[in-house]
Parts: sequence; C-alpha cells; structure tokens
Amino acid sequence: MNIDMIRAAAARLSGRARRTPLLSSPFLDGLAGRRLLLKAECLQHTGSFKFRGGWSAISALDPDIRSKGVIAYSSGNHAQGVAHAATLHGIPSVIVMPADAPQLKIANTRALGAEVVLYDRAGGEDRGAIGQAISQERGLTLIKPYDEPLVIAGQGTCGLEIAEQMAEAGIENAEVLVNCGGGGLTAGVALALEAEAPPLRVRPVEPERFDDTARSLISGQIERNESESGSICDAILTNGPGENTFPILQRLCGPGLVVTEDECLRAMALAFLRLKIVLEPGGAASLAAALFHGGDLQGDTVVAIATGGNVDPSMFTRALETLD
Amino acid sequence: MNIDMIRAAAARLSGRARRTPLLSSPFLDGLAGRRLLLKAECLQHTGSFKFRGGWSAISALDPDIRSKGVIAYSSGNHAQGVAHAATLHGIPSVIVMPADAPQLKIANTRALGAEVVLYDRAGGEDRGAIGQAISQERGLTLIKPYDEPLVIAGQGTCGLEIAEQMAEAGIENAEVLVNCGGGGLTAGVALALEAEAPPLRVRPVEPERFDDTARSLISGQIERNESESGSICDAILTNGPGENTFPILQRLCGPGLVVTEDECLRAMALAFLRLKIVLEPGGAASLAAALFHGGDLQGDTVVAIATGGNVDPSMFTRALETLD
Repeated sequence: MNIDMIRAAAARLSGRARRTPLLSSPFLDGLAGRRLLLKAECLQHTGSFKFRGGWSAISALDPDIRSKGVIAYSSGNHAQGVAHAATLHGIPSVIVMPADAPQLKIANTRALGAEVVLYDRAGGEDRGAIGQAISQERGLTLIKPYDEPLVIAGQGTCGLEIAEQMAEAGIENAEVLVNCGGGGLTAGVALALEAEAPPLRVRPVEPERFDDTARSLISGQIERNESESGSICDAILTNGPGENTFPILQRLCGPGLVVTEDECLRAMALAFLRLKIVLEPGGAASLAAALFHGGDLQGDTVVAIATGGNVDPSMFTRALETLD
Repeated sequence: MNIDMIRAAAARLSGRARRTPLLSSPFLDGLAGRRLLLKAECLQHTGSFKFRGGWSAISALDPDIRSKGVIAYSSGNHAQGVAHAATLHGIPSVIVMPADAPQLKIANTRALGAEVVLYDRAGGEDRGAIGQAISQERGLTLIKPYDEPLVIAGQGTCGLEIAEQMAEAGIENAEVLVNCGGGGLTAGVALALEAEAPPLRVRPVEPERFDDTARSLISGQIERNESESGSICDAILTNGPGENTFPILQRLCGPGLVVTEDECLRAMALAFLRLKIVLEPGGAASLAAALFHGGDLQGDTVVAIATGGNVDPSMFTRALETLD
C-alpha cells in the first residue's frame, strides 16, 4: 500500500469522481476559533466519499472477472458507492445490508442498480455466510469496505485533492479531521498527505462509545467496540480498525478525537445554516470536533472532511431542532 | 454592457468567488426525463450568487469613493453579498431591509459586518427616501441589486463558469434555467453564454403571481407585478425587470417558465435528498421547472442554476414534509 497506488486510483477516477469543494464560512471560523475548511464529500456521487473506493476497486479488476459482478457488505454508503460504480461499469452487484440500516440507504442502493440482500443484525444472522454462499454460486468478487488496498487507494484520492486545494489556497499547515470507521478513508488520506503535503496531519474522529481507533492508537494494538450498532452515526460504526489500515493510522495519524451524538446533530445544523450542505450524523463528526473540541486541536487552520450526507428527513429535522 | 465587462469582473473575482460545482444525480435525471445539471450557487460565499455582483461592483469603485462605504436595498441575498464584500474590502456598509424579511437574512447581514436599517414595507415606508438621506449624509455609494452594469457583469461570471464546465463535460447544447427577479443574473449569464457557448439558451424562471419577466417577454415591454411580497420565493420578487436588464433578456432569452410554490418546496426536498445541498424556495424555482415542467423544455440536457440557500429551518422542514 503506497502513494503510487493512490495516484493510479486518481488516474482511474479522473472524470468520474467529483473534485469536491473546500467550503468555509466566517461564522464557522468564529465558532471554531480558527480557520475552518470543510471538504464536502457529501457532494460526491452517491452522497459520500465511498464512490471513490468502489470505483477504484471495480475499475482495477480483470475485465473477465469483473464482468461476473461484485458483492459488498455495508450498512449504506459503501453499498451505494459500489452499486453505482458497478452499474456504471455495466456489471451486476449484490449488496448485503442489515435490515435496520436507514431506509433511505437501502432504497437508494436498490435504485442504483444493486440486488439488495437483507439480514437480521440483531437476530445474529451471519452476513459473512450469507454473502459467501451467493459469491461462490455466481462468481462475484468481494469489494471490502475498508480493509482492501484498492479501496484505501480510492479513498486516498480525496487526500490528493486536499493537498492540491490547500496549495491553491496558500495554506501549508493544518490538522485534517477524518470521520473514522474501519479507517479506509483515514489511512488513504494520511498516505496521500504524507507524500504531497507532509505538514498536514490526520486526526481520526469517532462517536462516543465507538472510539475503537482512538483507543487502538493509545494502546498500540487493535481494540474493538462492544457493539457495531446503537449510534446515530451509522456510517462509521465498525468492529475496530482493519489489519491493513491500522499500521498506517499508527504510523501517520495524531491522537483520535471523540464527539457526542448531540455534537454531531449540532454540527449538521450549522452545516445547513452556514455552508448550505446536507450531512448525516457520521458525516458531521469531524465538523463537530472542529467546532466543539477546539481545545484538543493545534494550529490556526483545521480541515474537516464531511464524509457523507445520506440522512433521512426525520433525522435531519431532529438536527435542525438543535438551532432553536 | 458587454462580455468584456464580464471578463473584467471575472478577473476581479478570481480567488475571491468560489467556482461552484455542477452537480447531478441519476435519480434527478430520471425525474426530469433528461440529463439535469445543477449549478450550485447556494455554495457561493454568503449562500447565494449575489456575492459575485457585490464584489464586482465594490472592487471596481475608485478607492477614495469606496473608502466612504456603500449602501444597498435588499430583502436578503444582495444584502449579505454586499455586506460581506464590503467587510472584506475593509469599508462600511449600510443595508436597508424590509422588517418582514427572513430573520436569518437580517441576522446574517448584521453579522457579516453591515449596519442594517429596517423599514416597514407593509406600512408604506419609502425605502428610497430612507436610504437617500443616509447616503447623502455619509457619502455612501449605492450598489443596486440588479439594474447596474457592474453588478450584471459580476453575476455573468457564473455564466462563464457554466460555459467552461459544459465544455469540460463535452456538452454543447442545453437550456439554462435561471431564477429571475430583476434579471441581473439572467442577463449576465445570457451575455456570457452568448459569447462563450452560444448554443446554450437561457430561460428565466419565476414563481406564480410574480411572473413579470415572462409577461414582459411576451408583450415586449416591461410588465409589473401587483405586489413585491407575498410569496415564499422572497429572493426573486421584484417590481418588474430592470431598464438595463430587460433589453438583454429580450434579445437573448427564451420564453419564461412559471412554477408554483409547492413545486419549489418539492424541488428543495429533492435537492436535499439527491444532491445534499440546501436551497431556499426562490433558489429552487429553476430546479422545480426542470423537474416538473419538462414538457415546456427542449433538448436532452437542462442546466438549472440553484441561486441561493438562505432559508430558515422552519421553511426547510416544511419542504422536507413534501417527501412524506
């Protein structure tokens, strides 16, 4: 896993992924107490950065193998990214999703062309067994959500863009806050910045009770959460950092940051008000850290990657109520 | 008023205005029945395209005159654009606003550094008299909202970007839907496209009961509305097209389109769901026309300029309820 793989992914994604804008607002600068730049990956195709990794992995497959189709396990954003990338390649996709995932994410994954297979997460059904049976029967290739070098490389293209955009803005130094589930985006961005803008340091951000990466970085070994569900930040709940991602996080990332669910909702409301973008709770954790945990940050500039915006209207309305 | 003025405005705005992205979604393409591209000016500084015209006009003033400050009349978006551009220039600004303008717009205008003077629109107070007294006393320069060549030139830079972005996407032909109040943006974009991408034809979009431009284009003379308030599309309610803008609209624009308030709310909800952006009602009229009046459009591609996103949470929640 190295920078050349990220550059190769960028070449495959050229003209396919959006170069998402780096947004700002004097109001948010004031609240954060420093310059705050927000990389709006919610504006990426399918509403999250996951399209980058999905396209990167599928576009790198041998055409004969690719034509049989792909399979993925995901609660939502990886599902949509893989489904859309597969459909654009003209190949079938099967996505195994928990039945309690946000309804919008399930409906979108189907509408983007995937066959969705639901499983009962709470009832203990084994998604691995379900997926493996389907894969073997149809010869599908598994696209892992984060612990796969081609996926990490795709997510890393977001880091290449940040390095370019910071150079264009004449900014040399900043902490870069990344919402962290299994660490695919965090590792990819950290590798990209190491090569292209080494003074920019990545800090993973997680929701309370799901701070496996923060704890792993402290203990020096992979720590796990008690559960993989039970937070409104559904996009970034995983059972610990990956075997491929953790060594990268360990080598390159600063200490993890932990935010509350309420802080994520308030960050969503402020992104609505000041930046005119739609974030989901797990996509707003980095902004929440920038706004409400400034004492744990260093330097006069912070970059927050707003990783996704796939949120049900009811949850968004709940976030707006924090403005009252 | 010509393309050279727009190119000069683009040079003054370089590095100041955001090059807003052209967004799309396969879901919206399906609803529209053709390829739909949305120019997200809600992501411009201050949440609307108006920053372009404000900066263009203020940056072109003689420094001695500029240093005394500027004044503007506006219900909100022009107010914020002028206030922010003035503050960035380090000069004072006074904005005369109706007391019944959206509270968010009044609060933002103040926070962006302007002195806000409220007047009672319903009670018949004459904003012109109020503003003139303040201007003369302090030597302020009036920045008109649309009927001013430097402002039209600034708004036209949005059209230059559309021409570039369409060329990058390899698209030669489209109708370009523009939310139209007094016609500053519509005229500026039409002039820019005439020079840079002549097959792209501009169509003004207005809310029902405030279709002064559509009627003016039919009759060949400036027609007026019965009122300047009374629609949720507050950003684009004016008392007829301007003396400077109307001849340009007449020469270059296709027939006007008229949408209902309910269609604007539904377009806001779909922009939330599919593009992850926040639009205000008057900023969503063009998208509403693309989605719900496709029978009145021509060609296989439509561009909608989403002009602004300065909306109160309660109005946004009302829009989201249309998804139920």
